[in-house]
Amino acid sequence: MKRVRLGMVGGGEGAFIGAVHRMAARLDDRYELVAGALSSDPRRAASSAAAIGLPRSYDDYREMARIEAGRSDGIEAVAIVTPNHLHAPIATAFLEAGIHVICDKPLAVSLDEGEALAKLARAKRLVFAVTYTYTGYPLVRHARAMVRQGMLGDIRVVQVEYAQDWLSLPVETQANRQAAWRTDPSMAGPAGCLGDIGTHAYQLAEYVTGMRPSELSAEVTTFVPGRRVDDHVQAMLRYPNGARGMLWASQVAAGEENGLRLRVYGTKAGLAFDQQSPNELWFTPVGGTSRRLTRGRVQGAEALHATRVPAGHPEGYIEAFAQVYTDAAACIASGTTQGDEWLTTVDDGVAGLRFVEGVLRSSGMDGGWVSID
Amino acid sequence: MKRVRLGMVGGGEGAFIGAVHRMAARLDDRYELVAGALSSDPRRAASSAAAIGLPRSYDDYREMARIEAGRSDGIEAVAIVTPNHLHAPIATAFLEAGIHVICDKPLAVSLDEGEALAKLARAKRLVFAVTYTYTGYPLVRHARAMVRQGMLGDIRVVQVEYAQDWLSLPVETQANRQAAWRTDPSMAGPAGCLGDIGTHAYQLAEYVTGMRPSELSAEVTTFVPGRRVDDHVQAMLRYPNGARGMLWASQVAAGEENGLRLRVYGTKAGLAFDQQSPNELWFTPVGGTSRRLTRGRVQGAEALHATRVPAGHPEGYIEAFAQVYTDAAACIASGTTQGDEWLTTVDDGVAGLRFVEGVLRSSGMDGGWVSID
Amino acid sequence: MKRVRLGMVGGGEGAFIGAVHRMAARLDDRYELVAGALSSDPRRAASSAAAIGLPRSYDDYREMARIEAGRSDGIEAVAIVTPNHLHAPIATAFLEAGIHVICDKPLAVSLDEGEALAKLARAKRLVFAVTYTYTGYPLVRHARAMVRQGMLGDIRVVQVEYAQDWLSLPVETQANRQAAWRTDPSMAGPAGCLGDIGTHAYQLAEYVTGMRPSELSAEVTTFVPGRRVDDHVQAMLRYPNGARGMLWASQVAAGEENGLRLRVYGTKAGLAFDQQSPNELWFTPVGGTSRRLTRGRVQGAEALHATRVPAGHPEGYIEAFAQVYTDAAACIASGTTQGDEWLTTVDDGVAGLRFVEGVLRSSGMDGGWVSID
Amino acid sequence: MKRVRLGMVGGGEGAFIGAVHRMAARLDDRYELVAGALSSDPRRAASSAAAIGLPRSYDDYREMARIEAGRSDGIEAVAIVTPNHLHAPIATAFLEAGIHVICDKPLAVSLDEGEALAKLARAKRLVFAVTYTYTGYPLVRHARAMVRQGMLGDIRVVQVEYAQDWLSLPVETQANRQAAWRTDPSMAGPAGCLGDIGTHAYQLAEYVTGMRPSELSAEVTTFVPGRRVDDHVQAMLRYPNGARGMLWASQVAAGEENGLRLRVYGTKAGLAFDQQSPNELWFTPVGGTSRRLTRGRVQGAEALHATRVPAGHPEGYIEAFAQVYTDAAACIASGTTQGDEWLTTVDDGVAGLRFVEGVLRSSGMDGGWVSID
Repeated sequence: MKRVRLGMVGGGEGAFIGAVHRMAARLDDRYELVAGALSSDPRRAASSAAAIGLPRSYDDYREMARIEAGRSDGIEAVAIVTPNHLHAPIATAFLEAGIHVICDKPLAVSLDEGEALAKLARAKRLVFAVTYTYTGYPLVRHARAMVRQGMLGDIRVVQVEYAQDWLSLPVETQANRQAAWRTDPSMAGPAGCLGDIGTHAYQLAEYVTGMRPSELSAEVTTFVPGRRVDDHVQAMLRYPNGARGMLWASQVAAGEENGLRLRVYGTKAGLAFDQQSPNELWFTPVGGTSRRLTRGRVQGAEALHATRVPAGHPEGYIEAFAQVYTDAAACIASGTTQGDEWLTTVDDGVAGLRFVEGVLRSSGMDGGWVSID
Repeated sequence: MKRVRLGMVGGGEGAFIGAVHRMAARLDDRYELVAGALSSDPRRAASSAAAIGLPRSYDDYREMARIEAGRSDGIEAVAIVTPNHLHAPIATAFLEAGIHVICDKPLAVSLDEGEALAKLARAKRLVFAVTYTYTGYPLVRHARAMVRQGMLGDIRVVQVEYAQDWLSLPVETQANRQAAWRTDPSMAGPAGCLGDIGTHAYQLAEYVTGMRPSELSAEVTTFVPGRRVDDHVQAMLRYPNGARGMLWASQVAAGEENGLRLRVYGTKAGLAFDQQSPNELWFTPVGGTSRRLTRGRVQGAEALHATRVPAGHPEGYIEAFAQVYTDAAACIASGTTQGDEWLTTVDDGVAGLRFVEGVLRSSGMDGGWVSID
Repeated sequence: MKRVRLGMVGGGEGAFIGAVHRMAARLDDRYELVAGALSSDPRRAASSAAAIGLPRSYDDYREMARIEAGRSDGIEAVAIVTPNHLHAPIATAFLEAGIHVICDKPLAVSLDEGEALAKLARAKRLVFAVTYTYTGYPLVRHARAMVRQGMLGDIRVVQVEYAQDWLSLPVETQANRQAAWRTDPSMAGPAGCLGDIGTHAYQLAEYVTGMRPSELSAEVTTFVPGRRVDDHVQAMLRYPNGARGMLWASQVAAGEENGLRLRVYGTKAGLAFDQQSPNELWFTPVGGTSRRLTRGRVQGAEALHATRVPAGHPEGYIEAFAQVYTDAAACIASGTTQGDEWLTTVDDGVAGLRFVEGVLRSSGMDGGWVSID
Repeated sequence: MKRVRLGMVGGGEGAFIGAVHRMAARLDDRYELVAGALSSDPRRAASSAAAIGLPRSYDDYREMARIEAGRSDGIEAVAIVTPNHLHAPIATAFLEAGIHVICDKPLAVSLDEGEALAKLARAKRLVFAVTYTYTGYPLVRHARAMVRQGMLGDIRVVQVEYAQDWLSLPVETQANRQAAWRTDPSMAGPAGCLGDIGTHAYQLAEYVTGMRPSELSAEVTTFVPGRRVDDHVQAMLRYPNGARGMLWASQVAAGEENGLRLRVYGTKAGLAFDQQSPNELWFTPVGGTSRRLTRGRVQGAEALHATRVPAGHPEGYIEAFAQVYTDAAACIASGTTQGDEWLTTVDDGVAGLRFVEGVLRSSGMDGGWVSID
């Protein structure tokens, strides 16, 4: 299968989400990362590119768009992983150059900017993906399929929330780079918690239910003194079909790590999903017993579309598997041929076989105790 | 960082674990897959290699070992992902050729074979990794670190189990290729469930506790009529320090998907881990309250070593993220510029901004209802 | 300890909550039920009284109040377990007669009625308890104590909900007596779901936090066509200290049995309780790991105050224990001396001893298999 | 319904299980406690009897058996709640006197004693119940019914365990009266953990499956230095039908409160129950999705037989309800007419009505904020 030639803007050393985008692009082997403007600081751009073995490195995204558009082997798509306020100008530059865009959320810092991007992408007939990551879980796909198939009946109630606690204290005044730009209206836009995670909650509800609210009543609050954006939002929602909903997002919900949770209730059944336990989806008919659906057991085409590992092997199994490979690579690179403290080696394989042999021997002796020293 | 040049034996079209090995090798960008003998059937080997864009394809692993060893750009390591009975001859061939080995478990079909491999790897000073995948979870690493740091005190009791139900019926007599070779002693070896998953349970317990049992009393059972290997094993364990343990593995445990669970009890505290919920580790001091440890909150160096995503983003988040990328690649490849049914596009980004704008507007009106149509 | 002489109004044959009140009164042996007007239908009142061995039965609560007040051994307190619209007149009659009141919730069908009752109780210096049952859980008591002790810091966010699905269909039009009166404004009052369970949610939040909202913005909805009261309510709350809250109550939340859940977030930590798992309370400090608190482990005076059974024996253990007693009573009454299918008898006791003896024998033989036939 | 006249031996002040037996006897109003020999110490017997208002108190159980047997209103049944070594002599005395027996577990300290009791009860045609409490849970009853109805198919595997940690330290050498007698072979018998909780695990497995093992291989261990009985037991079980099982009981399992757990796997489905979450029972067909069964939703006759409260109200609801009653009794007794800190009073009822009124008002104003001060 042909790989898509990919470029990246942002994601230099010290950034967080850029590396995740690169892993995501690599996992299914559908992309080849060939160019980037990883930082607006030329030296950091160059060293970041070298660190990951990037073929072509640029200092400026406009130059990158222009040059790549002119090469026969230039990038076909660009991933934009900068702070929010740069999404629109960067996306515009690449769209103008005829390059597909994969952009982190929120799309932009204002509705006007966003609508302009949508219009431009349409005019240019280019793919413009926004990485609402949580829509990629197999069980979110399955939930959506269940709604579409009418298994919930008509939807009456939507409850969605996204609760975190990492901004409970004024960490932006300390050396927390993530907090600093996310609470700075000049980079994050006018919405804080609302834009950062409220949009995720909103999108997840829509993705699963297929319904978009027509009216809302809301209040944003800033709890931490001195903070320049909201850190808490609550809203009541009305849907065109008469359904009602509530949305809550908070970054000061003490004790919550990353609690994105969706519950949908219809005339026939209800669904619940918590992204912190992405391996399960709860389904309960009216008056019935709850079923814990897992990707491997639901056997739906939609979940299979997003599936890489067999039943019972949870989302995350591949990371564990990759860790073994990466630990092996470290040993190979360093010549640590007997394995380091982490790697399971041939000696562990032998120990397993000694166990197997001991079990068969003991079982053959009617369970007599045997030594496996 | 220099990538390791990797080859693969097995893992052609229709196989399962080979593709997982390739994703694992790709995720952290530490390997470059350059050669393979993906099948012993020459046509299938060639077509499988073409499907994944493999640079060099071989029909025979012996030839592959010989030729690759002679090239200046030959593979440095080989991944062996065949049925069990081939592990030893293949690993031997590559070790003899001076090539590092990454081998699926169980290491071999007999203890003698396994010990010969260990001896050869040591003599050749080569890395020989066995992919006991479950040791790669951040929280398994953290559990091990807690034991080492003495947080459990002296270990008294080990309870480990691995329960599945996929062999509850005689599926090997139907067209289930995985079941067929795993219940065929000529390919799987004399141990069925015992070798397939009992060894995983055994290894996980050892990895976390650092203790290897000295004696065991065991019984293997075959529940499904006509089956040629065991499908159930139970054992009692004695450890050198006086600790006691129980190990149970079953492939006929009705309703269990992939229940690998470990509990360790010491003089000071207890630990529990279930690989089906890899995002949590339970820790309880004697007489105290249980703590639900998560990777992002434990802040241990060992968990960080195996960590790719921030706190609260569960193992599996990368797969979800990759799914978004892969769906985007599909749209790019097919020219579906407005997105397909799965991809979240710029229009979803605009919807999010419309929500943000609506919330800010309503909040500014003391929560008055506003339209966001 | 002297028992309180108790009367009851309502709770005749076919009613539901009356029997629960009687069990509750009996459990701790602090009450003696001596009189009742169990039904307004004289025949049903008499037969209901006979069925439970009630000493004094009345046809009319007014007569009951008058006569009991005049007896030297008359009731000291009355339990009111009728539909809502009768709470106020009955309570008034007994208060006027100088008798303490224990009344089911909601207190009355209007705020005016309720305020009049409060005023009268105060004037008469009588105890007037409203049975907000969920406040009686040991872990609710403990949660309240934690808030009081400042373990959460200043409270910022309250999330409370009470979700059921038993009114998802128009069951009031079928022969569902509970549904009929609870959806009839002439008996339930103007609030349906709001009064029936919304008040429970509201009270639980206040009981634990010690805070009462000063403002709210709310919407009630009736989803089931033809229903005469609301079956869904959602509200946003503002507290005097600046905290924010959301309250949701629904009787059409498909799949929900009795989901009363409270979460409280402060500047230092968060708490979560779900009455469907009353044996656990979750506590998480900002940025820390979650603790699963159980009654037996928290060792707080407030939980102990509401505790009857030792650590690890969940709320509900007494019911299980009572069941064994009750099954024994049935055997005694019927002369089924060898036990019925439910009762564990001396033969089960012998089986246990045979197991004990077998284990000791096997253990003495180094784990040799022994017969325990 | 006529109440059974009940006596009690043991259960004086300072004892634990006696009070639980009394609550259990009271809950369903099927017993009347009229006599007791609550302690072998005459003064303690008298004061204990006075404290609970017991009509007839004895110093000696033999005298009690003799006199009660001679009275026309004498006890019909006796509850024995002493340490283990006294079960057999006391039960013998009452059986000889023609009185039914309800005895705590384990039945006796030796198999011979137990068999003699069984023989005597049979000869006398008397009911002899052994209080294996955990058999009284509605969902244990339902599990048993599911097995009987063939919903699991033929049972292949039984996994049962009972894990506690309260004897992890040598608490019997400190002032822990429960630990002292339970680890003293002269009172507890030769089995420690094995008799105390191993028998519960054994009985629960049998109660649900209807199967009794024919052979076992076991080992008892004493982990705590100086302890005179076992504190850990593990066993492998063989059943007549070829099924296999494992039983584990430990009182040194650090962090475990009262972990009695049963899992049963058949040819068609599996079941799991944990008494620490008695409100749920897990059922999973081979290859299917797990269902979380609750008492209120399963609608089985067997669960209903042991049910006191409606769906969704968990086991334990009655205790919460009783707590409200008991707090009210305390206020009545002390004249605290405005309620103490725990009791929810008429003022809380009014607050609820104020909330109701506010919600209706706000909803009528299209969700405008209203004050509810």
